[in-house]
Amino acid sequence: MEGECKRRGEGQVEIGVMMEAVHKVEAAPPQSTVDKMKLRLKETFFPDDPFRRFKGQPPRRKWVLGAQYLFPILDWAPNYSFSFFKSDLVAGLTIASLAIPQGISYAKLANLPPIIGLYSSFVPPLVYSVLGSSRDLAVGPVSIASLIMGSMLRQAVNPNTDPFLFLQLAFTATFFAGIFQASLGILRLGFIIDFLSKATLVGFMAGAAIIVSLQQLKNLLGIVHFTKKMAVIPVLSSVFHNTHEWSWQTIVMGISFLAFLLLARHVSIRRPKLFWLSVGAPLASVIISTLVVFLLKAQNHGISIIGKLKCGLNRPSWDNLLFDSTYLGTTMKTGIVTGIISLTEGIASGRTFASLRGYQVDGNKEMMAIGLMNIVGSCTSCYVTTGAFSRSAVNHNAGCKTAMSNVVMALTVMVTLLFLMPLFAYTPNVVLAAIIIAAVIGLIDVPAAYNIWKLDTVDFLVCMSSFLGVIFISVQEGLAIAVGLSIFRILLQTTRPKMIALGNIPGTNIYRDLHQYKDAKRVPGFLVLAVEAPINFSNTTYLNERITRWIENENSMEEKETNLRFLILDLSAVPTVDTSGISFLIDLKKSTEKHGLELTLVNPTGEVMEKLQRANKIHDFLGVNFLHLTIAEAVFSLSSQNKLQQQEVSSTLFI
Amino acid sequence: MEGECKRRGEGQVEIGVMMEAVHKVEAAPPQSTVDKMKLRLKETFFPDDPFRRFKGQPPRRKWVLGAQYLFPILDWAPNYSFSFFKSDLVAGLTIASLAIPQGISYAKLANLPPIIGLYSSFVPPLVYSVLGSSRDLAVGPVSIASLIMGSMLRQAVNPNTDPFLFLQLAFTATFFAGIFQASLGILRLGFIIDFLSKATLVGFMAGAAIIVSLQQLKNLLGIVHFTKKMAVIPVLSSVFHNTHEWSWQTIVMGISFLAFLLLARHVSIRRPKLFWLSVGAPLASVIISTLVVFLLKAQNHGISIIGKLKCGLNRPSWDNLLFDSTYLGTTMKTGIVTGIISLTEGIASGRTFASLRGYQVDGNKEMMAIGLMNIVGSCTSCYVTTGAFSRSAVNHNAGCKTAMSNVVMALTVMVTLLFLMPLFAYTPNVVLAAIIIAAVIGLIDVPAAYNIWKLDTVDFLVCMSSFLGVIFISVQEGLAIAVGLSIFRILLQTTRPKMIALGNIPGTNIYRDLHQYKDAKRVPGFLVLAVEAPINFSNTTYLNERITRWIENENSMEEKETNLRFLILDLSAVPTVDTSGISFLIDLKKSTEKHGLELTLVNPTGEVMEKLQRANKIHDFLGVNFLHLTIAEAVFSLSSQNKLQQQEVSSTLFI
Repeated sequence: MEGECKRRGEGQVEIGVMMEAVHKVEAAPPQSTVDKMKLRLKETFFPDDPFRRFKGQPPRRKWVLGAQYLFPILDWAPNYSFSFFKSDLVAGLTIASLAIPQGISYAKLANLPPIIGLYSSFVPPLVYSVLGSSRDLAVGPVSIASLIMGSMLRQAVNPNTDPFLFLQLAFTATFFAGIFQASLGILRLGFIIDFLSKATLVGFMAGAAIIVSLQQLKNLLGIVHFTKKMAVIPVLSSVFHNTHEWSWQTIVMGISFLAFLLLARHVSIRRPKLFWLSVGAPLASVIISTLVVFLLKAQNHGISIIGKLKCGLNRPSWDNLLFDSTYLGTTMKTGIVTGIISLTEGIASGRTFASLRGYQVDGNKEMMAIGLMNIVGSCTSCYVTTGAFSRSAVNHNAGCKTAMSNVVMALTVMVTLLFLMPLFAYTPNVVLAAIIIAAVIGLIDVPAAYNIWKLDTVDFLVCMSSFLGVIFISVQEGLAIAVGLSIFRILLQTTRPKMIALGNIPGTNIYRDLHQYKDAKRVPGFLVLAVEAPINFSNTTYLNERITRWIENENSMEEKETNLRFLILDLSAVPTVDTSGISFLIDLKKSTEKHGLELTLVNPTGEVMEKLQRANKIHDFLGVNFLHLTIAEAVFSLSSQNKLQQQEVSSTLFI
Repeated sequence: MEGECKRRGEGQVEIGVMMEAVHKVEAAPPQSTVDKMKLRLKETFFPDDPFRRFKGQPPRRKWVLGAQYLFPILDWAPNYSFSFFKSDLVAGLTIASLAIPQGISYAKLANLPPIIGLYSSFVPPLVYSVLGSSRDLAVGPVSIASLIMGSMLRQAVNPNTDPFLFLQLAFTATFFAGIFQASLGILRLGFIIDFLSKATLVGFMAGAAIIVSLQQLKNLLGIVHFTKKMAVIPVLSSVFHNTHEWSWQTIVMGISFLAFLLLARHVSIRRPKLFWLSVGAPLASVIISTLVVFLLKAQNHGISIIGKLKCGLNRPSWDNLLFDSTYLGTTMKTGIVTGIISLTEGIASGRTFASLRGYQVDGNKEMMAIGLMNIVGSCTSCYVTTGAFSRSAVNHNAGCKTAMSNVVMALTVMVTLLFLMPLFAYTPNVVLAAIIIAAVIGLIDVPAAYNIWKLDTVDFLVCMSSFLGVIFISVQEGLAIAVGLSIFRILLQTTRPKMIALGNIPGTNIYRDLHQYKDAKRVPGFLVLAVEAPINFSNTTYLNERITRWIENENSMEEKETNLRFLILDLSAVPTVDTSGISFLIDLKKSTEKHGLELTLVNPTGEVMEKLQRANKIHDFLGVNFLHLTIAEAVFSLSSQNKLQQQEVSSTLFI
């Protein structure tokens, strides 16, 4: 401020005013440790403050709100209108036409009998429609989760030689997935899924899509003996080492249907009005191919078909849950991995479409809903399900209004299960392969990867590592590597915090990065540094070395008629310190004095200030001039007592 | 500023001036990705810029400097004076008198033959005196590392039934420890030891000290059959289940010598002048006890003695290094754990005494020195060694000048090895136990723990968890838990960043925490928030929920005649953003507009600014008024165009 006014030639009076205007650094009003802990816990686990709607409501209302919180259906069912139902009916039938072929295909992707896929498209949607808070989510099996479950369980049991045990493990893994998801929601640990960053997911999805597609070469080429491995190399090798098993009929059929599906997809991307084209295509190809096989008796010409499927609804399967210690490890691990992955897809889809329509989706509540859905599913012959992004998009475009569209879909699937199963007997596996490939191709998002590359090189590194990891090592390890990298990056940002040298912008009280702002000028005799991270055990050593180096540079660089006299440390960007941080500041004060410098701290935030005061009770190091509210005020009041400084400094300098 | 000036009644002109004076946010001067990477890497791995001394030196000088960098002895040897030597001689003999009994005791602590302890006090000090850059460090075996090595190897091999194999594993573990330490130094990964925070170490040391002391009850009570476990429960149980094995002679001798040692220690703490008392005590008690046993033939009265020790110097042991796959895991793990622990003690001691004398110790170089020392040691019948804190303190107090004191100590130990070994034949184990206990008692630092409790509750939690973990689970697991907690805490600070609502301090341009500063006033119509962490994938969801909640609170709380119109996000404390962070900001802009708010960003730092611009190329979201240099300027220029805002806002509000 004084700078401004001096230039206006208002002279000494102003500065007098300024002197009075120098402000004291205050500590936050005292608070008991318990209250602080409470607040901290709330900020950590209840950032969305889910109970704020309950505050100051009459008890009866509270009950209603509570019920609505647990069962969102109570929220929309009462004022559900016929016009709503019409839209939900259309949407429901649309996603059903997608859900049936995809259900069968994804079940095969997880090495499970096709009917499990339909079971999983019947019960879970009903559960979700009661518990879920999203209006657009279309629930059912998804490709990635199916792939992971299949590959992870396969390492323990061979689905071909021991299908029933494999099925049991699948149900058990689904059960654990549900338990894990629900408890994440209940314990408010939703942020765990945040550790799958966009970059990670882009890379992961693309990798998984490629793996899935390659896996499908088995059915697309009609190969009988195929590797159990997931990585690219073994798959390709077993593709080209079994060329004698290729059946041209299968290949012809596969290619043609794949072409048809991709064409439909391409058209409806170009013309959003025709989106029903890509929606109808899968069911159409199932019907057509089934007819073709049936009429041409193609199953006798080397085209493998699904075979007989029993009619009837889900059988109870809770007695199939297997908690045998030999497989417990596998099932738990599978449950947790598939649980996180499917949760991520579910929550992400929910949030996306919610923001499109401008309503909120409570992440933790969704986790409970999806978790319960999977627990119930595991007891009714379903494997892991979640909100599928692609089908939710269709649901949204088809104009669904509420979760009722899921109910419609479920009922359609029910009808299929009860009466239409025999029709699928002649459906060729090659068409299912084509459907899967056409579905997962959409997961490869090159533009997104390109944008990441443009924006942030490290993020791109994470993206690529998860992509390559998935392709060349394994699905779960690729994911682990990417997450590990992301976490390491966060740690690095704290252990190697940014430090900025600040300079004054002439004619103002503003101090800014000297490197960033060309017109910022360093104040002679002052070194102004800003730390931009919590100061704690992991970075005190670094900060020490860094600052020492800075001081040495300054002393060597600076033209000698102005010696470096003051080190100003701007703590505005230091949210917290720990004990190591405090002792770092104390030691820094001592060591700078050794260099003949005076250390000053500027604008410590509430928590830092509080700890400084507590430490002061023990060590008593806070001098009169140690704390200032702004850099400008620090510079002003320090340089104003220069006279005294002068001798003292020189004396310390030349001993 | 305009606030200030308006109140001075200088009116419109001023504001006109102000309008011109509003500053533009600049990006840092453009820099190639390669340069940026270079800088980042340098800041990460070479914060101390070790090569700055080489810059602009003539090539010959560079060679000299290089040699001096690798072999600090070349730095001090040339101008080594006789007066230096006198002090080093005294100090050397002093620490030798401590090193000999402690060497023997610590070797037994690691379940190794006592002579290995003396070997380890001969070769490593010589190596260090050539490579080490600390002048005060006294090198040799230390209690904690010995304890850990003993306990970890014991899990694989029983030292009593298979002593030679155990010895081989010890050498191999030492070899791996050396390799690990040296590579940490060479790869500049020194910061890994920073993750052992002060809190962790205080708890760990105390726990280890207690474990060690309890272990010594075996010798102190003369028990023959003793548990192999480390945790408190089994040790105590085997103490009280073998009461019939207690031998009163041993107990009497043990207690009396322990009392003597503790008394000496107590006195020399009270009277620093008498520090030689505590230094001499161990050797004295060894000599006295040995004489007593020899004269009274006490070995026949249930007092166990060391027994015959062969004379002679270290034998080469490189042919004893065992890389057999069955034990590779154990030895590597042991090597890494003991490596880190001993490194931490060594570096910490070095830094402490360096700062006392005001010279620098290069952490990474020290790691190389200690690492090489252990590699050489493992090939010359030594087990893991480092700079011992207690002995270094003695060395420092005894007035050592250079690493020459280590040479003196080594030579003294050599003489002992060559001629005096037979004298130790009658030394009773109980006295060694007493020496160990007296030594490790000092590691229990209650005041430090108390200060941590006073300063930082979470740190205290970490401290206690490592303490209890060590005592009740195991040494290495206790450590792992504490480190895990510390890392989790860092992650939490990023995933749940501090957000502060700022208010204006009347009559200034200063905006500060409303909670912290009572006189800070909220500007009606504005919500000013500061984020204090990098904005990345791990916290975008949280920030979103948090901000939404804040806006709702504001809208509900604020008296209705001033609607909330502007959301100002102060990014001064946001060092970096990643792709998720960028899309968060873009989405926030959209969602706030839905709320009828205008979002403004204040003072983005260099990297953030750069990424905003890059993102702008893709999404084009940076409006005219989107960026401001200071909060004050943002408030000023936004409220000045209120008129236009007015309608627009209301229009957005009431559609």
